[in-house]
Amino acid sequence: MTDAAFPPARSPLTLAQGLIRCPSVTPSEGGALAYLAGILGRAGFAVERPVFSEAGTPDVENLYARIGTGPCLLFAGHTDVVPPGDAAAWRHDPFGGTVEGSELFGRGAVDMKGGIACMLAAVLAFLERRGPDFGGAIAFLITGDEEGPAVNGTVKLLDWAKARGERFAHCLLGEPTNPDTLGEMIKIGRRGSLTGDLAVHGVQGHVAYPHRAENPIPGLLRLAQGLLATPLDAGTAHFDASNLEFTTMDVGNPATNVIPAEARATFNIRFNDLWTPETLAAELHDRLAAAAGNTVRYSLDLRPTNSVAFLTRPDAFVETVTDAIEAETGLRPALSTTGGTSDARFIKDACPVIEFGLVGQTMHQIDERVAVADLDRLAAIYGRVLDGYFPDAAAMPDRA
Amino acid sequence: MTDAAFPPARSPLTLAQGLIRCPSVTPSEGGALAYLAGILGRAGFAVERPVFSEAGTPDVENLYARIGTGPCLLFAGHTDVVPPGDAAAWRHDPFGGTVEGSELFGRGAVDMKGGIACMLAAVLAFLERRGPDFGGAIAFLITGDEEGPAVNGTVKLLDWAKARGERFAHCLLGEPTNPDTLGEMIKIGRRGSLTGDLAVHGVQGHVAYPHRAENPIPGLLRLAQGLLATPLDAGTAHFDASNLEFTTMDVGNPATNVIPAEARATFNIRFNDLWTPETLAAELHDRLAAAAGNTVRYSLDLRPTNSVAFLTRPDAFVETVTDAIEAETGLRPALSTTGGTSDARFIKDACPVIEFGLVGQTMHQIDERVAVADLDRLAAIYGRVLDGYFPDAAAMPDRA
Ligand SMILES: [Zn+2]
Ligand SMILES: [Zn+2]
Repeated sequence: MTDAAFPPARSPLTLAQGLIRCPSVTPSEGGALAYLAGILGRAGFAVERPVFSEAGTPDVENLYARIGTGPCLLFAGHTDVVPPGDAAAWRHDPFGGTVEGSELFGRGAVDMKGGIACMLAAVLAFLERRGPDFGGAIAFLITGDEEGPAVNGTVKLLDWAKARGERFAHCLLGEPTNPDTLGEMIKIGRRGSLTGDLAVHGVQGHVAYPHRAENPIPGLLRLAQGLLATPLDAGTAHFDASNLEFTTMDVGNPATNVIPAEARATFNIRFNDLWTPETLAAELHDRLAAAAGNTVRYSLDLRPTNSVAFLTRPDAFVETVTDAIEAETGLRPALSTTGGTSDARFIKDACPVIEFGLVGQTMHQIDERVAVADLDRLAAIYGRVLDGYFPDAAAMPDRA
Repeated sequence: MTDAAFPPARSPLTLAQGLIRCPSVTPSEGGALAYLAGILGRAGFAVERPVFSEAGTPDVENLYARIGTGPCLLFAGHTDVVPPGDAAAWRHDPFGGTVEGSELFGRGAVDMKGGIACMLAAVLAFLERRGPDFGGAIAFLITGDEEGPAVNGTVKLLDWAKARGERFAHCLLGEPTNPDTLGEMIKIGRRGSLTGDLAVHGVQGHVAYPHRAENPIPGLLRLAQGLLATPLDAGTAHFDASNLEFTTMDVGNPATNVIPAEARATFNIRFNDLWTPETLAAELHDRLAAAAGNTVRYSLDLRPTNSVAFLTRPDAFVETVTDAIEAETGLRPALSTTGGTSDARFIKDACPVIEFGLVGQTMHQIDERVAVADLDRLAAIYGRVLDGYFPDAAAMPDRA
């Protein structure tokens, strides 16, 4: 794949720069979706721009675009970005889209305006090659609320699409999935996430009179040990072991002569396909009850979660993407389920979904940046996926 | 002892009301020391009002008064009080000195304006009975900085008195020492107090990538268990067991997807005469090192303490006070070292000190109050102590 594959105005670099220059920090659209809508509309897509609202969260703009009929390959992603932090600490304007040497700088360069630019470049080139009657459909489902509360984004956009009768055969989500090198990792599932708030109730008093008080801190230590003592599991074929981390533990008592009334802690569990939030809740309650005995008074609140463990079983689609990656990079990607959650956890209810994008190293950091060569290579990979997914009947050997 | 023992203007109730009506919340003098100075001056005392200062703390007024020559019995105490809290929650104005039924209400009623009023009433009556040549000396050492930083109070007042050549034979400190009933408890010593700040250092990271982070919370749990697992001791002849309480434990991380970088805890130890701050520090460092092994990175800061365990050995003075209490109340008081620290920890370096005052139940609370009968009884006890301490040669049986 050479530069010649993409005319300059439609090169992944040009498209990524166009997106980075839109300051679309969540929940602001920043012009990014309008930019996409213009290009997709001119390419023949039917473009919709639904705005979703919910009390207590900002309204969010989204984009849905479709072309063709038949089995639909969905490209999914988000144009919103996390704030740049201290803009002065950047080597280049985080919204400037500056190329220095072989790298493009800017917020969203890898997460994931760069990924969207590659999808777009690949699809435009594919339609150029094959015309609108390529034997299927292609859709874009792009949210402006992935980095924020994620309430008015992918979830509602999928519901909205379903209500309109849109159906998808497979989805490719363009989040940055590669730890170090483009091509090394596809995500074929994600662990679930469950957060719990634990409180131990004691009786406040003076440290000099401990028998009149009941210090909740030793009780909290006991419960925490009870949760941590035994691993939740040892992992499964496609998943790492489930893991519980205490993220905070707080009493907030500044008086060194006072025994506090309450001690609180929060933990987060990343769990694999051996568990559901319900079975985990039962396990947690069992462990706490055993650790508490009759002496520790506590309460556990599990926060509602929409993040359950899921796995897209390796199939022909995974094979198509893997082959495309290997053809462009020479690497056979690992089929992984590691890392945090993503919108794939919502999409998996609509169709099988896998994730493949750029190298995530600089995401959410100062000087987020991407190798221009990676943009070209990823666009070429997506191009090969399109060719593999929608084989050209006219070019079939048996018709030759 | 009947009311007739004290003329109305010098009754413990009248004096306590006079003091309560001075709003002397630390560090404000509020007129309380001026009130004492006037009465003591008119009774023949040489009265001094030293003011002490130190950078970072408010200036504090204090009072020192002395009458007589020879062995000096020191009455010690404080006129400053803790804030009333929500004044509207009180049944009576916290600075009103209102009597309702058999009780006097007001901030300081038991801690310890009531106690000072009883000392004053007893001393005035004693001087009335015996005249200025009673065969010894009586001094008052009253600070306005006991409830606050305690920097510009008793410590400096004792240094100041020492520099002037003042010497004391014994001290009676009038803090509230009785848990429930007047007469049940004398304090003949106090445990020491040592506060430590413990920090465990980890490496921040994302909960989904625990291998790239190092959660400090399990390390803190381990160290805390190491400190709590074994009692420090089992107590001694005059002291309860030393006791360690964690007073707070804080991480302050609101992000449930972030493993924090550091976890902190503070503990306070009330220790008996088996320990000094130095031997305790060594024990704590040993326990932490054993619990930490090679895996937990931590730091321990022990705050400077001026509170070491001390004991006033039971002697003739303790006997005098005990006899006085038994004569008035019918109770033989326990000789205790329980409870928090007090200014006795400073006075013990000047002379043997014991503490006996009112019933502490309502101290520092809304509706702090004292039974008027307890005021009369405590003044009578102090009167008996004076008579016992300064026997009347003219009334001695061998001269009769
Ligand atoms: Zn992203
Ligand atoms: Zn006091």
